[in-house]
Amino acid sequence: MDLIAALRRICGENAVQDGAEAGGLGRDATGKYHWRPLAVVRPRDTAQVSAVLQLAGQNGVSVVPVSGNTGLNGGTRAEGAIMLSTERMNRIRDIDPAARTATVEAGVILQTLHEELAPLGLGFPMTFGARGSARIGGILSTNAGGSNVLRYGNMRALCLGVEVVLADGRVMNLMSALHKDNTGYDLRDLFIGAEGTLGIITAAVLKLSPLPRAHVTAVVAMARLEDALSLLNALQAASGGGVEAFEYMPDIYMDRLARYRPDLLPPITTGPVNLLIEAASTAPALSDPGPEGAPPLRDAIETVLSDAMEAGQITDAAVASSDAQRRKMWEMRESAAEITLNELPIVDTDIAVPLGAVAEYLDRMRARITKLDPQARIMIVAHLGDGNVHYTVYPSRDDDGLQNDLRQAISEEAVALGGSFSAEHGIGVSKLPTMAALKDPVALDVMRVIRQALDQQGILNPGKTIPK
Amino acid sequence: MDLIAALRRICGENAVQDGAEAGGLGRDATGKYHWRPLAVVRPRDTAQVSAVLQLAGQNGVSVVPVSGNTGLNGGTRAEGAIMLSTERMNRIRDIDPAARTATVEAGVILQTLHEELAPLGLGFPMTFGARGSARIGGILSTNAGGSNVLRYGNMRALCLGVEVVLADGRVMNLMSALHKDNTGYDLRDLFIGAEGTLGIITAAVLKLSPLPRAHVTAVVAMARLEDALSLLNALQAASGGGVEAFEYMPDIYMDRLARYRPDLLPPITTGPVNLLIEAASTAPALSDPGPEGAPPLRDAIETVLSDAMEAGQITDAAVASSDAQRRKMWEMRESAAEITLNELPIVDTDIAVPLGAVAEYLDRMRARITKLDPQARIMIVAHLGDGNVHYTVYPSRDDDGLQNDLRQAISEEAVALGGSFSAEHGIGVSKLPTMAALKDPVALDVMRVIRQALDQQGILNPGKTIPK
Repeated sequence: MDLIAALRRICGENAVQDGAEAGGLGRDATGKYHWRPLAVVRPRDTAQVSAVLQLAGQNGVSVVPVSGNTGLNGGTRAEGAIMLSTERMNRIRDIDPAARTATVEAGVILQTLHEELAPLGLGFPMTFGARGSARIGGILSTNAGGSNVLRYGNMRALCLGVEVVLADGRVMNLMSALHKDNTGYDLRDLFIGAEGTLGIITAAVLKLSPLPRAHVTAVVAMARLEDALSLLNALQAASGGGVEAFEYMPDIYMDRLARYRPDLLPPITTGPVNLLIEAASTAPALSDPGPEGAPPLRDAIETVLSDAMEAGQITDAAVASSDAQRRKMWEMRESAAEITLNELPIVDTDIAVPLGAVAEYLDRMRARITKLDPQARIMIVAHLGDGNVHYTVYPSRDDDGLQNDLRQAISEEAVALGGSFSAEHGIGVSKLPTMAALKDPVALDVMRVIRQALDQQGILNPGKTIPK
Repeated sequence: MDLIAALRRICGENAVQDGAEAGGLGRDATGKYHWRPLAVVRPRDTAQVSAVLQLAGQNGVSVVPVSGNTGLNGGTRAEGAIMLSTERMNRIRDIDPAARTATVEAGVILQTLHEELAPLGLGFPMTFGARGSARIGGILSTNAGGSNVLRYGNMRALCLGVEVVLADGRVMNLMSALHKDNTGYDLRDLFIGAEGTLGIITAAVLKLSPLPRAHVTAVVAMARLEDALSLLNALQAASGGGVEAFEYMPDIYMDRLARYRPDLLPPITTGPVNLLIEAASTAPALSDPGPEGAPPLRDAIETVLSDAMEAGQITDAAVASSDAQRRKMWEMRESAAEITLNELPIVDTDIAVPLGAVAEYLDRMRARITKLDPQARIMIVAHLGDGNVHYTVYPSRDDDGLQNDLRQAISEEAVALGGSFSAEHGIGVSKLPTMAALKDPVALDVMRVIRQALDQQGILNPGKTIPK
């Protein structure tokens, strides 16, 4: 086929697969989505991406960018399309420790970046379970969140500049390393989170942070979720806004953890509500051991926890006293995908509600699920500090209609409480019906006209993000 | 005239001015820009804004939104257009202390918001000299920066949701109060900073912060600007990233201050380089007086300053020991507009370069200015912690060609060092030639197609932001 030959001329003989070989790559990390790509191409640089897009446009063939392929909503489905993998564009072009920036290509794996930065005393404060596979291009295209958004923000907050190849192959250079740049519209943030439907991000300038001098990590058991917000506020006040993670693992999560990962025994007597809490600081006066031994940050957190225990809000708590203990606490939380997405049928979602509304949301949902499917089992894990709940249901039977009803209920209740039906996982294909039903129709129309204006043929990741 | 009558039917008899009365309002705070508006209208709510835009569209008349009218680049010039003032849409709809959000209308004055929040122990950490006049709508439409961007970010970082009226009068509701919401393109940030060319922002949800428990404010004199970055890094390390402001006032600025504001005598022997530094914390362990009296934050800052003095980097320093002293230090810096924009002819600009490049930028500029106009005088004041320099030149003669050459040189050198020709003031009309010359042409084209797609008639603030 001529197109395949032309792709090989652009990217090199070994960088293009088609036929059965390409077919074997037509799936994502969830196992829910399968497709037959026309070809899989692995360009080495921006110029090759540009040439592939020009060729695709001339042939009216769609192009779907794929990075780590760890998304959960089918955003990389590429039926009959060219899958454009970023994996060979994996250079860290520059790290500037004084300016605290890293310039990276789209194929750099998140964990690789973490590992390069650590010896410099720097971090890129974006982290989540799939960090060993997820690549910067995909992380940007989904505006990823994760466990530290509370402190550092999502990918938009952590990115200073991007390079983007447009649908017609033109390269847009927005590779600024500046913290202030008001020269026209915010195109950077328009392309971040656009799931590859407006352009393909090929490189970025990322904002780094000094690694904390001290972490205080704790797991805590509580009886009532309603008490969690006042605990968070007390911890923020005591640490000067130093809470980096505030993660929720209910009893049903801990039960499942005990079943699938018995090696991860929690160091506390768990309760209906269990929290993984981490505070950190770079200030020596907070982080370095004080006259009585412990860093003031640790004293401050322990005081809040013991006050909360005396007040009856907390039933048990353990503060990590070594890095190994800290890691084990994190592993409990980061096993979420492994232990919750391992069963079918499944309805897994990602909603957010205002902080004060999480308990009410869970109450309302329990009632709605019981009506829709009395035998369904519920699974929950949450970035509670962001109001972001990964709400999962295992329905009692494999029935598309029931699954859609469950999905819709989960989204509707979130929006009814002023929330979002996709907090961090994006839209892809699985949330298109929800997007059509619940997103402001004027906003949807604005998205449509922008997409149409930038990709008139509609060849970039078609059928994603925006419902018809 | 029928249009005026129709505007009166929409907004009320007293909310519309035309003729000479409107003409008297056709100017901005700089005194550089004058125009004759067709009418000035003051809608009371979003529905009236929508009706005005529909009417304008039917009549092919342009609409220019105006808030505090304190911009410096002519962004509110409204020759022959309807000036739409936000001043009557000035309600603070809601303040939620637990969730730390404020829901405000576009006409709320920044300082009014500060004053409403203070008794609650909360702040909205956006501040600059014009805060007593500037209104939220304009602050959002220019993505304002100011003196605390270093710590809290610009308006995009401080805004969770917006309500926008589109060119055709439709209302887009993006009034989310969520920290995580990945439901499609980032339309919010597209409209923030668009200078009213894509839609009119009528309301917003803003992110609040707890007021610091302690401020440490200092003025410092140095011999060499090259030493400032290492001082900033040392202060950040000592305070745990607590530096909120790091402002640069060179000797030429202090001389001008002494001339126009002799009441603001600096508490130090000034040098070639003078800095206003502020660090703050909400952590009790840093902010509250320690066993030796002073808060650890103050000890930490004073230690850095005395080390720098011993190392010969600093020649003099004073730390404010009362709120009155702190205010006086800030007044020195915030008099900038008053004491530097009071002379004609003037070329006032707003560039940013990477942090490490400021000293080189100033050196290069001095050489270029000397060649262009040996008698020109230079005036500088800078948000040094952001690499953001307000570079002003008083040319020796009133000559448009010379002024354009100076403006171009100032921008070119910034871009040559990886910087921006508009850090926080935006484009308006005065920077259109620079935008045409120096912005990535693909990015310009993307802006054009987006504007065209959202406002086909081109009635929203025409002739601004994007060059022809």
